[in-house]
Amino acid sequence: MAKTTFEEISAADFFYRNRDIAGFTNPSRAIFAAVRELVENSLDAAESLRMPPNIYVRLSYEGEAGKETQIYRLRVEDNGIGVPPRHIPSAFGQVLFGSKYKLKQQRGTFGLGGKMAILYGQITTHKPACIISSTGASKIYRCRLMIDIQRNRPLILDRKVLINKERWRGTIVEFCLEGDYFRAMPKILEYFKQTAMVNPYANLTFVDPRGRLYKFTRVTKEMPDPPRETLPHPYGVDVELLQRLIQVTPYRNMLEFLRYHFHRVGEITARKFLEFSNISPSKNPKKLSHEEIVRLMHMLKKFGEFLPPDASCLSPLGEELLKAGVLKELKPEFVAVHQRKPSTYAGHPFIVEVGIAYGGEIPKKGNFLIYRFANRIPLLYDEASDVSVRVVNSMNWRRYKVMPDMPTAILVHICSTKVPYKTVGKEFIADRPEVRREIANGLREVARRLQRFLTRREHVDRERKRLGVFSKYLPKIAQFSAQLAGKEKLPDVKKLLRSVKKFGAKET
Amino acid sequence: MAKTTFEEISAADFFYRNRDIAGFTNPSRAIFAAVRELVENSLDAAESLRMPPNIYVRLSYEGEAGKETQIYRLRVEDNGIGVPPRHIPSAFGQVLFGSKYKLKQQRGTFGLGGKMAILYGQITTHKPACIISSTGASKIYRCRLMIDIQRNRPLILDRKVLINKERWRGTIVEFCLEGDYFRAMPKILEYFKQTAMVNPYANLTFVDPRGRLYKFTRVTKEMPDPPRETLPHPYGVDVELLQRLIQVTPYRNMLEFLRYHFHRVGEITARKFLEFSNISPSKNPKKLSHEEIVRLMHMLKKFGEFLPPDASCLSPLGEELLKAGVLKELKPEFVAVHQRKPSTYAGHPFIVEVGIAYGGEIPKKGNFLIYRFANRIPLLYDEASDVSVRVVNSMNWRRYKVMPDMPTAILVHICSTKVPYKTVGKEFIADRPEVRREIANGLREVARRLQRFLTRREHVDRERKRLGVFSKYLPKIAQFSAQLAGKEKLPDVKKLLRSVKKFGAKET
Repeated sequence: MAKTTFEEISAADFFYRNRDIAGFTNPSRAIFAAVRELVENSLDAAESLRMPPNIYVRLSYEGEAGKETQIYRLRVEDNGIGVPPRHIPSAFGQVLFGSKYKLKQQRGTFGLGGKMAILYGQITTHKPACIISSTGASKIYRCRLMIDIQRNRPLILDRKVLINKERWRGTIVEFCLEGDYFRAMPKILEYFKQTAMVNPYANLTFVDPRGRLYKFTRVTKEMPDPPRETLPHPYGVDVELLQRLIQVTPYRNMLEFLRYHFHRVGEITARKFLEFSNISPSKNPKKLSHEEIVRLMHMLKKFGEFLPPDASCLSPLGEELLKAGVLKELKPEFVAVHQRKPSTYAGHPFIVEVGIAYGGEIPKKGNFLIYRFANRIPLLYDEASDVSVRVVNSMNWRRYKVMPDMPTAILVHICSTKVPYKTVGKEFIADRPEVRREIANGLREVARRLQRFLTRREHVDRERKRLGVFSKYLPKIAQFSAQLAGKEKLPDVKKLLRSVKKFGAKET
Repeated sequence: MAKTTFEEISAADFFYRNRDIAGFTNPSRAIFAAVRELVENSLDAAESLRMPPNIYVRLSYEGEAGKETQIYRLRVEDNGIGVPPRHIPSAFGQVLFGSKYKLKQQRGTFGLGGKMAILYGQITTHKPACIISSTGASKIYRCRLMIDIQRNRPLILDRKVLINKERWRGTIVEFCLEGDYFRAMPKILEYFKQTAMVNPYANLTFVDPRGRLYKFTRVTKEMPDPPRETLPHPYGVDVELLQRLIQVTPYRNMLEFLRYHFHRVGEITARKFLEFSNISPSKNPKKLSHEEIVRLMHMLKKFGEFLPPDASCLSPLGEELLKAGVLKELKPEFVAVHQRKPSTYAGHPFIVEVGIAYGGEIPKKGNFLIYRFANRIPLLYDEASDVSVRVVNSMNWRRYKVMPDMPTAILVHICSTKVPYKTVGKEFIADRPEVRREIANGLREVARRLQRFLTRREHVDRERKRLGVFSKYLPKIAQFSAQLAGKEKLPDVKKLLRSVKKFGAKET
């Protein structure tokens, strides 16, 4: 008889065995993933302090590895908040440990990327990672570590404490990894370019293995309002969440429980809801039975009068910035941007921003050029499965007189306290119906504006042609009629021409 | 100053927070994912015993949930190997615990799907799951459990031991979950249909919430050779794996270490490799330094003389079965199938089987119809990002005179000890270069055969037209010439017609 052996594996072991799901599919994607994960952590670390980020990334060649791969040393420095010394080993050497597990718009969401990069470096080069960090106090902490994958714990090789004379604040991560930079290069450069486009307040410096310097300098020091941590919205709760809240709540009655643990539930709404769901306001939440909790969850979802989630916890780009980014990057003839009102999926607030750009320097490709962003990071891989691309492909563009073979670029930015990524590698966004609807409505709006522009341009073109005909023949007719009438002086054709002009079209 | 809080979350908590990455994106996909994960576990459980699987799936309506969702009770019964009683709670109530963490071709690979289904049921209905299992011995074990998500441990509500008079063997899993069956229905039925197509030795019964019975009866009791557990191939090792092997090895010299821990390394190959990499055969592997381990890994990848992985540990469908499946399912005019030789990516052996079918009942869609399978399970979602679809889209089909608007279906089956899925939900396969190459080569082969068929048919068509012209005019010419020559009897035109016939084309 066949024997089945059962075993438990650690979370680090799981991701070690399944690096594909975290974006570390092949040497080219691995090096891309490592760079982006660390850059995104650095952007988050600086923004949480409201500091314009200064990020320095250096990739240097260390030696040959396989037939097509090399060993690189990756170093990422930031001026972020720094990691408290006692958390450094776990924050970089333990999977599923981190500061990202809360309801807040941030780039990192899984608390996984940085560690996966270090883990990937370790299994391909077996060299320790070096972390240097300071929160700006009197000491700088330096730690060399590896990851004990089977136990999912950091292995500290050595630690050092340095004096922080200059009160430096930030984090430096440095480690070696195997990769294929030359295949990854176009994506990495595109990544920096697009990141700079939606983070115009950041300084990004990248030194590539050949020593070439790519510098993306900030154009403004003004930063959008930082995203804030928020409470769960009642539409998105599940039983597990209710139970966790009940476990920790200090409140002894349902009214206060609802008011203080949920997003946008005030006293009036809470009272209305309790009446709607026939629960006594003075009921102690800790005394709810299992069945009552399940019923509470269903009632929360059915009650139609909760306010939509508040956008103030989100930090979208804004139409101005979006437009500026598109104009700067794509130099189109026409651009329309639109920010949707905040919406919610599974209780997570999100805002969709879309843009459409036409003509100018946008190339004709036979397909729409699609730029995808989520929480201000560009998404560059696996575009075919992304919800934005699916919406674009399923839209009836003909209705808007827009054809895929026109030089058109589409930009979609989703920001949310929880972006519904489909993969841990944050390559694309799942097809949630609420998100899909917002994207579709946003695109319809900008498509209509593009249509108006195109229609108007068509009119203008037609008018220009009409005027062209007039201006070609009127002088001749004037000449002939003057001759016929035996007059010397020709009538003033220009006046006539002006009188038939519509739309303020230019004369040809 | 901003405060950063660090915390550790359990693996169950991670997947609870990120169910999108495990396929539980929305109520429709969640119910599909729950069904498939349990069916696949059941197929694996029966096959590991070499028993033709009997699987019974029932989905019954339990009540309304949200606006568009309902509560369903899902029950899946199999005649598989059964779960040993002491492992039942963890096998169903603890994420990253299971029997799937080995190098063997099996449907499940993450040890996650069944638990995710139960976890999803729990957070949407808060009802316990009920597991009944027996390994065929004198007792049947019944266990009702929930998952403690924060600690990632099963919570046992009650256990019961029953007498197994009839020596029943198998597992029954039953739990409630919220879902949208009517939206999921087409995919679920397609899933059963395609699963039956590539598992012709299985009995699948599905009772849907309206009580409709779908029965897929086995057409054969013969099962392909079961896949076997295998050793890692030297091309695919990384430092972590080498270290784990060194930790557990009982062998005291490198020669034996290589021979007994790696796939297809015999004494001669091991000696050659050790000479190539300048390592003494008598060196104790436990005494390798870190640098030597890294060097060993690189040398293993560089050495060109390891035998390719042995296909005997894999269990592909086989060309016969594949062809039969395609003919039965698609009823085409032409079909070509091809099994590639075993290959390897990152040390995991894999076999690609492809098929192309043309004409007959295949609809004209403007696109190729693509069927994707991995380890004998159909993949139905997120096809746009799948490596097979990408290969199909990037191929120069014109070279083979095949156009996307022809009624053409393409089938790709990948079997491997480790399918490089991109998501934990097993929706699509990552774009590994080795896998891509095998698929491309396989498709080229069947495309060539389709081209030969099409060219031949074109010739035949042309010939048929030519003969049509002859057979239309020759009798007239014969008649006229007979009249002109004043003869009564016409010459035998048929003989003449036969003499100009090529290719054995039918006369019109």
